Amino acid sequence: MIDKQSYREAMARLGAAVNIVTTTDAAGPCGLTASAVCSVTDDPPTLLLCINRDSDMNEAFKASGVLCVNTLSAAQEHLSPIFASMTGATQEERFREAAWTTLSTGAPVLQNSVVSFDCRVKQFTEVGTHTVFFCEVDALQFGSEADGLIYFGRTYHRIVVAAA
Amino acid sequence: MIDKQSYREAMARLGAAVNIVTTTDAAGPCGLTASAVCSVTDDPPTLLLCINRDSDMNEAFKASGVLCVNTLSAAQEHLSPIFASMTGATQEERFREAAWTTLSTGAPVLQNSVVSFDCRVKQFTEVGTHTVFFCEVDALQFGSEADGLIYFGRTYHRIVVAAA
Repeated sequence: MIDKQSYREAMARLGAAVNIVTTTDAAGPCGLTASAVCSVTDDPPTLLLCINRDSDMNEAFKASGVLCVNTLSAAQEHLSPIFASMTGATQEERFREAAWTTLSTGAPVLQNSVVSFDCRVKQFTEVGTHTVFFCEVDALQFGSEADGLIYFGRTYHRIVVAAA
Repeated sequence: MIDKQSYREAMARLGAAVNIVTTTDAAGPCGLTASAVCSVTDDPPTLLLCINRDSDMNEAFKASGVLCVNTLSAAQEHLSPIFASMTGATQEERFREAAWTTLSTGAPVLQNSVVSFDCRVKQFTEVGTHTVFFCEVDALQFGSEADGLIYFGRTYHRIVVAAA
C-alpha cells in the first residue's frame, strides 16, 4: 500500500475541471469547491461527486437531496479559493462574490459558468473518508463558449476555446 | 428530466484528463480510453472509474480484479483514439504503439505517462448503463514533469507545465 502523501502527489497530476457545488440549508445558500466530479451514465443522465465526510456541506447535500454542480470558466478562477475555504469567507460572503439564479431544484446556479448541472441526489455510499453522491441531472445551464479552467500540478490553467 | 443529447453536450464542457485503463485477460494485455476517473479518498488511497457495461473491458476488469489507470501526457495524445476503438486496432496492435512495464498488480503500466495508478478492484456497483469500479491504489509511477492532456469541448488541449 502506498502512503497518503504519495497518493496526493499522484492525484495532483490528474487534471480536472473546477466546480462550485451548491445547495441550500436552513441558513441559506451554501457551497464548496470540488474537482472529484465525473459522468456515470446518460441513461438516466447521472453524475457523481465525492465529498469529504468532515465537510459541513456533506450533511447539507444529504439533508436537502438537491445540489448544483457549477463548472467554472477561466474568468471565474477567483471563486475557487473562496469556496474552498481558503479565505475564511462565510457562506453568505461567498455568494456575494458572484451572481446566482435557480433552475429546477432550487439549488444556486452560478451565472456565466461553463456549464451547470442541476441535480437530485438519488443515492450515496460512504467510502473511507468520503461520501460518493450519485445524482440525476434535472436541468442544465449552458454558458457562453467561455474558456475552461483546469487544476493540474497544483496550479490553475486556462483552456482556450477556439472560435467556431 | 433532460434528454441524453443535452446531457452529452453538457458533459463535453466538463474538462477531464485522458487515461488508458489496462488489465490482462486470457488473450493478454487489454485496455481502453477513459475520462470518467476521480479520486475518492486518500485513506485508504482509492480512486473510482466508470466503464460502460457494453464494453468488453468491463468484464475483463471484473474477472482480473486489477487494473492500471495511465494518465496521458500531451505527447501521448495519439494513443487516445487508438484505445477508444476509433481506429479498429486489435488489443495486440494497440499495445504495440507504446512501451509498457508492470508494477505491483501485473496490469500494463504505460511508460512516460504523466502518472500511473496500479490498482486492485475493491468493489463495484452498477448504475444505469455503467459500472462504477472502486479501486485501491497499490503502486504508483510518476512520469517526468511532462505537459498534461485535457479533453474539453470535444478537443484535446495541452497543459503546459512551467519549469520549476
